Amino acid sequence: MANKRVVIVGGVAGGATCAARLRRLDEQAEILLIDRGPYVSFANCGLPYYVGNVIHDEAKLLVATPALFKDRFNIEVRTRHEVTEINREAQTVSIHDHVAGRKFTEHYDNLVLSPGAAPIRPRLTGINLPGIFTLRNIPDSREIREWIDSRRPQRAVVIGGGFIGLEMAENLAHRGIKVTIVEMAKQLMPPLDPEMAEYARVHLIAHGVQLAMGDAVASFEQSDRGALIVHTQAGAALDADLVVLAMGVRPETRLARDAGLEIGERGGIRVDSAMRTSDPKIWAIGDAVETRNLVTGQWELVPLAGPANRQARVAAGAICGRDVKFDGVLGTAVCGFFGMTVALTGATERSLSRAGIADFQAIYLHPNQHVAYYPGAHPIHIKLLFRKSDGLVLGAQAVGGSSGPERRIDVIATAIQMKATVFNLEDIDLCYAPQYGAARDPANMAGMIAANALRNDVRLAPWDEVPSTNALLLDVREPHEYAVDPIAGAYNIPLGKLRSRMQELPKSKEIWVNCGIGQRAYFACRILTQHGFQVRNLSGGVQTYAAFYPAS
Amino acid sequence: MANKRVVIVGGVAGGATCAARLRRLDEQAEILLIDRGPYVSFANCGLPYYVGNVIHDEAKLLVATPALFKDRFNIEVRTRHEVTEINREAQTVSIHDHVAGRKFTEHYDNLVLSPGAAPIRPRLTGINLPGIFTLRNIPDSREIREWIDSRRPQRAVVIGGGFIGLEMAENLAHRGIKVTIVEMAKQLMPPLDPEMAEYARVHLIAHGVQLAMGDAVASFEQSDRGALIVHTQAGAALDADLVVLAMGVRPETRLARDAGLEIGERGGIRVDSAMRTSDPKIWAIGDAVETRNLVTGQWELVPLAGPANRQARVAAGAICGRDVKFDGVLGTAVCGFFGMTVALTGATERSLSRAGIADFQAIYLHPNQHVAYYPGAHPIHIKLLFRKSDGLVLGAQAVGGSSGPERRIDVIATAIQMKATVFNLEDIDLCYAPQYGAARDPANMAGMIAANALRNDVRLAPWDEVPSTNALLLDVREPHEYAVDPIAGAYNIPLGKLRSRMQELPKSKEIWVNCGIGQRAYFACRILTQHGFQVRNLSGGVQTYAAFYPAS
Repeated sequence: MANKRVVIVGGVAGGATCAARLRRLDEQAEILLIDRGPYVSFANCGLPYYVGNVIHDEAKLLVATPALFKDRFNIEVRTRHEVTEINREAQTVSIHDHVAGRKFTEHYDNLVLSPGAAPIRPRLTGINLPGIFTLRNIPDSREIREWIDSRRPQRAVVIGGGFIGLEMAENLAHRGIKVTIVEMAKQLMPPLDPEMAEYARVHLIAHGVQLAMGDAVASFEQSDRGALIVHTQAGAALDADLVVLAMGVRPETRLARDAGLEIGERGGIRVDSAMRTSDPKIWAIGDAVETRNLVTGQWELVPLAGPANRQARVAAGAICGRDVKFDGVLGTAVCGFFGMTVALTGATERSLSRAGIADFQAIYLHPNQHVAYYPGAHPIHIKLLFRKSDGLVLGAQAVGGSSGPERRIDVIATAIQMKATVFNLEDIDLCYAPQYGAARDPANMAGMIAANALRNDVRLAPWDEVPSTNALLLDVREPHEYAVDPIAGAYNIPLGKLRSRMQELPKSKEIWVNCGIGQRAYFACRILTQHGFQVRNLSGGVQTYAAFYPAS
Repeated sequence: MANKRVVIVGGVAGGATCAARLRRLDEQAEILLIDRGPYVSFANCGLPYYVGNVIHDEAKLLVATPALFKDRFNIEVRTRHEVTEINREAQTVSIHDHVAGRKFTEHYDNLVLSPGAAPIRPRLTGINLPGIFTLRNIPDSREIREWIDSRRPQRAVVIGGGFIGLEMAENLAHRGIKVTIVEMAKQLMPPLDPEMAEYARVHLIAHGVQLAMGDAVASFEQSDRGALIVHTQAGAALDADLVVLAMGVRPETRLARDAGLEIGERGGIRVDSAMRTSDPKIWAIGDAVETRNLVTGQWELVPLAGPANRQARVAAGAICGRDVKFDGVLGTAVCGFFGMTVALTGATERSLSRAGIADFQAIYLHPNQHVAYYPGAHPIHIKLLFRKSDGLVLGAQAVGGSSGPERRIDVIATAIQMKATVFNLEDIDLCYAPQYGAARDPANMAGMIAANALRNDVRLAPWDEVPSTNALLLDVREPHEYAVDPIAGAYNIPLGKLRSRMQELPKSKEIWVNCGIGQRAYFACRILTQHGFQVRNLSGGVQTYAAFYPAS
């Protein structure tokens, strides 16, 4: 019997991992890894940092070389080779060798598609002017570096305020360039709920990044001084010596479409839980495929390295006849910029609503990343989503300083994956020492606050109804705090005076209580509830209020 | 009906938390919080850092004051009051007011004992000489600070190399003092397995700390120059201007014993899952109680703030008639010193053996805390323990730089608490960006390595049998690596040459393969297994070998 022949199209995260895993599982298979670019297995997540010169040495981005694949894995790598067509009946792929300029076909027993996703590049006037870049691979990042080194740009416009856009903004700022971000949506970082993205907006402004929110690029023009002018739909004209398009990515599905493979509703290649496409000889992995969200059950495009890696292992296992499964993703992600860390996992309020799921509740908290008495404490803003009917943890978002949010999101991701409830989250025995956390870790705190709500120890008030409610708004902070940033119309009784002054409050109407971060309001709710008042807590206090209703 | 009267003995972590929780649950209860010291609710975990002047301001250690307890919680706090006796039949406690010098009794409906644990202070010659300190409370830390400020000590001896001993060593070094640690055991940090504690030993030596391992203090003597001489059982005489006893703590059970409450096999107060002692009116929480280890099922003394906090909430809930339970602890803990972080959770090999559990296996790995290509990468040494029969995660230990280990241990703690297997651990969708981790997070990697072993993709070789085995030892590193630190007797074929040179290897005997950290050896095992060789991987490579068999 001839050895199995596996052809893999695309040699970055997914493809390279799949190839190496295949070899570990099957020493006899013939494995051919084909990439249209000059490199395989490069660190695409590092590209923004290479542009920013945080990573100085391009060679560091090369995780593995074709020679290493040959020596270590006995895998044949062909770079600058492009698969142009799949012949499913013949089980062959047509390959264009861009070096030799020749075309040929290769037979496969199994084909793995790992083509990735391409940066969106809208057909706008001037889109091809020099100085307008996208960032997908090493040559892209080298071009941007060379542009920066040779032209010394003063001003850059980044189109798109998602994760890559913010990473690019930071890295360009790191090169001494003044950055403006143009973002079509009303918020940055679209995977987040808007009030959580608000912290990023404030942070970017504080770090000198200019923002054009709710505005889209309309066209590009060369100015008379050789620079670019970015025209927006709202009529702004932004000067730029450099433009980076970070408008998201689109799965590369041409090959799959042309071959008649099933494409999903979100535009990605549709696969089963073994990463198999609608053709049983063809697998697909990585940014080009759709995958199920583990919480909402919805199909999603999740262009992240972690899932690509796991999908690659599943595909390799399935090809080798193993009983393996890719269950889906939580979409756990983290992004850092200007000393801020934003991380999330599972569902957001938006993704739940989009999936038609109404059985959920959200709580907010703002604990420090470690105890306040140890130097360097700073808050992590956390939103936790959980099922109202049984407390199942559904998702979380966390925004904080240079470290801390990713750790709590990892804990909550683990909890979600293991189907934990907020009652479990209360009890998890986590690391604590003064410089590392708190006896009640922020993840425990999130569980406790949610559990308090589910046990009806305290009812929650909805933030979006604050401007319209007929409830009495009660602020239990100290007068000097209340004076600085009151919620409009709130009445002030500091917590310490509440027992002696509660006769000032009505029993006939609901009272919505707030404080700075939600803790004193919780104490106040417990006091008032036990004295027969109808109370609700505005979870997260004025720190959350400011995120819902920004002053500027 | 009269209001419930709850007396709480001990006002630090457990007692103060219990009091506050009681008030939230019962606005009507009379709550009396009694502490023999001058403060309640102080940050005892911060004390070493106050000694080290990392925390400058003593006031920062006061989490809450009696006035705040009164104003916010309507809780009466009596400091410098000591409960000297419990009369269970009368439901009263005898109290000695150390300020007024009077004695009186108070009635309780429910009594909560949160007396904590006292530093061990052996009755050795000279133990009471000036300059010998223990560290339990604010006055203790103030005394040490004053000694340092007034005497400018040059040399300190810390007796005990556990968590507190190492924190003290760092903080004394931070004050410019040369530190020697005397540790009776052959390893530092007794909660760790010895090979994992080895990294801490090497690190301390690299940071100028002197170690007297496997030696115990015998007596103290005043030298003629006014300093102290610490005599050890091995005959050493160590000069010291300051001695800190960090020999562990002993639960304060005198009150409980005198009252005839059940004491457990480890010497702590025995409680049920509602934190109730053998007297249904008396609860006990915190460092003074025994608690079940969630993994081994053994009773343990776990003097940590996190469990104390959760126990306090459970006791308060139970007193208020709620259906609450404290299931036990994982003993999750973290300790930082000289830029090293050591964290652990669940069972160790030692605790499993002690519990008579043999159904387990261990793997080692040394991944970086984030991708190698991003500046600042450094290794985390991880040991994962799992059940061999079904893959259940049992415990983990991690040692690394100033951040990273605690995050992975938190993930694994969550996994253990949720009864995850190593197969779950492989798949958890965790945060990744270059500065935060890797597409395969170290926690995923740990799961994968363990799962590979359980799936029989690679068998593991036992490190402790390396010196005595008849197996062929094969090192698959490059010759220049092999030349530096070979395992004695190992044969070298670099991985890249293995396919062409495998005829050099015997099929008749077992081959134990090693590399630098275990990855190349795993690849080699896969190659050799599929070619019919009998192979096993030495998990963790020479980095683990060096921990088992230190050169010095």
